[in-house]
Amino acid sequence: MQQQRLLAVARGDQPADLVLRNLRLVDILNNEIYPSAIAVCDGRIAAIGEDCCGVEEHDLQGGFVCPGLIDAHVHIESSMLHPAEFARVAAAHGVTTVIANPHEIANVLGVEGIRYMLRAGEGGPVDILLTVPSSVPATDLATTGAALQARELLQLRNHPQVVGLGEVMDFPGVVSAKERLLDEISLFGAKVVDGHCPGLMGRNLQAYAAAGISSDHECCSVAEAQARLRSGMKIFLREGSAAHNLRDLLPVLNQYNERWLSLCTDDKNPADLLEKGSIDHLLRLALEAGVPPVMALRMATLNPAEHYRLWDRGLLVPGRRADLLVVDNLSSFQPQLVYQAGRIVARQGQSATTAENRRSLAATFDDTVRIDWSQVDFRIPARGSRIRAIGVTPDQLITACRIMPAPIDKGEALADPGHDLLKMAVIERHHASGRVGLGFVVGLGLQQGAMASTVAHDHHNLLVVGADDDSMMTAARAVAEAGGGQAVALAGEVLALLPLPIAGLMSTGSVEQVASAHLELATAARRLGCSLQDPFMAVSFLGLEVIPELKLTDRGLVNVNSMEFVPLFVEE
Amino acid sequence: MQQQRLLAVARGDQPADLVLRNLRLVDILNNEIYPSAIAVCDGRIAAIGEDCCGVEEHDLQGGFVCPGLIDAHVHIESSMLHPAEFARVAAAHGVTTVIANPHEIANVLGVEGIRYMLRAGEGGPVDILLTVPSSVPATDLATTGAALQARELLQLRNHPQVVGLGEVMDFPGVVSAKERLLDEISLFGAKVVDGHCPGLMGRNLQAYAAAGISSDHECCSVAEAQARLRSGMKIFLREGSAAHNLRDLLPVLNQYNERWLSLCTDDKNPADLLEKGSIDHLLRLALEAGVPPVMALRMATLNPAEHYRLWDRGLLVPGRRADLLVVDNLSSFQPQLVYQAGRIVARQGQSATTAENRRSLAATFDDTVRIDWSQVDFRIPARGSRIRAIGVTPDQLITACRIMPAPIDKGEALADPGHDLLKMAVIERHHASGRVGLGFVVGLGLQQGAMASTVAHDHHNLLVVGADDDSMMTAARAVAEAGGGQAVALAGEVLALLPLPIAGLMSTGSVEQVASAHLELATAARRLGCSLQDPFMAVSFLGLEVIPELKLTDRGLVNVNSMEFVPLFVEE
Repeated sequence: MQQQRLLAVARGDQPADLVLRNLRLVDILNNEIYPSAIAVCDGRIAAIGEDCCGVEEHDLQGGFVCPGLIDAHVHIESSMLHPAEFARVAAAHGVTTVIANPHEIANVLGVEGIRYMLRAGEGGPVDILLTVPSSVPATDLATTGAALQARELLQLRNHPQVVGLGEVMDFPGVVSAKERLLDEISLFGAKVVDGHCPGLMGRNLQAYAAAGISSDHECCSVAEAQARLRSGMKIFLREGSAAHNLRDLLPVLNQYNERWLSLCTDDKNPADLLEKGSIDHLLRLALEAGVPPVMALRMATLNPAEHYRLWDRGLLVPGRRADLLVVDNLSSFQPQLVYQAGRIVARQGQSATTAENRRSLAATFDDTVRIDWSQVDFRIPARGSRIRAIGVTPDQLITACRIMPAPIDKGEALADPGHDLLKMAVIERHHASGRVGLGFVVGLGLQQGAMASTVAHDHHNLLVVGADDDSMMTAARAVAEAGGGQAVALAGEVLALLPLPIAGLMSTGSVEQVASAHLELATAARRLGCSLQDPFMAVSFLGLEVIPELKLTDRGLVNVNSMEFVPLFVEE
Repeated sequence: MQQQRLLAVARGDQPADLVLRNLRLVDILNNEIYPSAIAVCDGRIAAIGEDCCGVEEHDLQGGFVCPGLIDAHVHIESSMLHPAEFARVAAAHGVTTVIANPHEIANVLGVEGIRYMLRAGEGGPVDILLTVPSSVPATDLATTGAALQARELLQLRNHPQVVGLGEVMDFPGVVSAKERLLDEISLFGAKVVDGHCPGLMGRNLQAYAAAGISSDHECCSVAEAQARLRSGMKIFLREGSAAHNLRDLLPVLNQYNERWLSLCTDDKNPADLLEKGSIDHLLRLALEAGVPPVMALRMATLNPAEHYRLWDRGLLVPGRRADLLVVDNLSSFQPQLVYQAGRIVARQGQSATTAENRRSLAATFDDTVRIDWSQVDFRIPARGSRIRAIGVTPDQLITACRIMPAPIDKGEALADPGHDLLKMAVIERHHASGRVGLGFVVGLGLQQGAMASTVAHDHHNLLVVGADDDSMMTAARAVAEAGGGQAVALAGEVLALLPLPIAGLMSTGSVEQVASAHLELATAARRLGCSLQDPFMAVSFLGLEVIPELKLTDRGLVNVNSMEFVPLFVEE
């Protein structure tokens, strides 16, 4: 029996499987650092102390040993990597546990997608735990591949790798006590319910907290963070590829509220993961900002473990998982060696495991782009002279509704790249319904060609923008033929393509391949005139019908403020 | 629906049931104290802020409002009070939640006794939550009223008021990986498992921690406390009537490990509860010792709440229970007003509730003293000239085995009060088996008369010590006729009697009555010559066969070191 062997090793009556020796233990609970050794048995810590002996011994050459890092909230899909590949990259950066919210794949594949994420990470170097996505689909104004019903939420809730209900984004719904949401929250009453409430303040914030929402990772200001802490909500300090909140929020941290703070990445693109890292990057930022190392580490280990009630990790003490990392110093914080459940998973910042199950698992969901091309036609018959165009705001997800004239030729409304007016289409890709939503977008800067993507929040239909219908069709077809992905095309030629065959969201390639393709796409889009920093990031949010003001789905143009469809053409 | 009303009040769309106004909120999470108001709805906090309005409003006259206190570990039976009366006293001292381990009543009544404790506190001013006693009975060397089997533990585990497995006292058994204990612990894997491991250190302590034991309240020294913290175990700083550990342990506290520390009383007699108080007394001691008020408060509120996973209390924030207390200042810390679930339960240190269910509930278990008197005979036929006497050590539970001559008269071994040698009997009182264990005790100082008690750890048989058989019989009969209790007698006269008809452990009287009777008993025993500070406390442990060295049960004399019966007479 495992437990009996663990205790025998703890007592010193049997040798450990592995002893880590010649190390400085960073005891984050007591703020002590002392020379010691760690005995490991069946992937767990059996004992701490230099009198341990083991079948195998590793000399850690005086390195500092810290608990493995925990990412309190991440969307793996944002990395566009297969979960097994994502795990390899995260592990190389000292992350041994992530709390992932599989919100994107759930919109494509429902409960099957969620189960896939669990399976795909199995046996990998990172323990992938999930929160169950709330609000799938977000609205009924777009077509998704699947929906999560109460029955399915219930099933998922009881899964051992599910730690709670993921960020409840419909915060106005919660505040106004919408019954379906309160039911969802009460379903997860015995687990954790995470929040997502940018900008929410005052009495409405208190209502959100009173509903049982226990955290927020969307704070941008100290005032927002303080208001949440005063309401008893925990704060995740976020530093992702698009959202940079850590430094702004650090002034809120003190010795008292520290236990209520954790670190998270939320969304990281592959280049960013490769270049800057994961939670280790956040730790470095915190250390640079003057946070004491042990306090910074607690926000990346014990605090998220306690928040998610993971009593088996977060501290280096007997009985807990042997998830740990070794660094040369506590300032530059470069993980030299990472152990997960007692085995080495990374060395010198490089993964020491292979993502062997990457391809085989990928095969399961490579047919999610289903389009009836016979019905796809980007022509827009003119029903007036002025249109409602989606106005892109640089570096923001919010768009404006811009009323402007469209050039009309032979009864058709056309793109007008000279005036930065592009055509946009959202092709329903889950059920081959043939449905296509058509509209216009202004502010992308594309002078010619087209961009297409099956990463299109939250419904992830095939979204295309372009200066002409031919380029749009080339880009869209290239993406569809790849089983999903992102492409840039000009006339009949595909200039850049990143295949994302896993649910149309994730690649089967390595992080290096995906990062390089991601870069090529951006370069190609910029060469065609696109003026934005991250062109595909901007494009992927043009269809998200819950962020104001005007968005396009496969079902049509949505006025988000009123949550209604509006006609493309303005009535004269 | 309750939740919808709570949110409506939180938003400010409906008036609260009650608003507490003109107060200084002690925000222990953020270490802030600020003027505010608290809106209460259905016993929970709906919102914080001066803009709250309510159907009823209380002016708190600028008082400091803190979360209600939590006693992390207490045996209610030690107060000898009915749970409802205990709750009234605790509430008057600002305690709104206790984690009680009904270990004593479980040895008398088993699962029925545990359910009684849950019922008896229902609707009272303190939320009584339980840990399930481990090791009932402690051994098979004594007869108890009941035993707890795995099946019953399982039933109890799922009770909503049960928070975990109580102090696992058989720490040598855990360390050596005794299967029954590991099974018990694993049964409670998803809840909390509390520890009890006085003196345990080194690798054996690590094995105990590795087994999943998460706390210890038996530390006496900083070194012990540090060893537990380094092993990841939490520490309860204890200050009871007999054990005074708080001041000795406070040096271990720092801003980092504070979250791992809680306060507990463990055992408090009624006089002590009345005079010194409960957790409020511990807070005062901590404040006197220089602990910052917010840090002291956290150990009495948030920390035990987090330890026992009571996410609905411990902080004054929206959604949590309106358990709170009002003090004039944060140094003398005298609770002026106590609210539990939004209703006033104490004013100016006096209970504001009646223990109306005290008597009716008591009737249920007033027949637990069942003795076949026809078989009770205190005469000891001489089987040698030297006996093994239990040697009392003042202020300690440990006894010595003293080999000494006994006066023999007409073939009987007799007490010899002139040499401080008393006779002792343990009368089986659960099943009327007629079984009586007989022996001798030295060191109590009694010159004449006898003392009897049905409080006799852990089996709680009727334990009698005395200078002569007549006095012993008078005391024993008096106790039995009262349905249990404690008595002092001289020849045919009962000098003092405290009836404890509830399972032979608890009174139906008020705390004042019990405290005064408790004092009268001690006075009477001292008048008869007893030299000990708390005579009945000492006597009640003379039968506890798990604390070395020599103890007497109804089955005979036990050598605790070898866990074997030994003969009373030493072989010549």
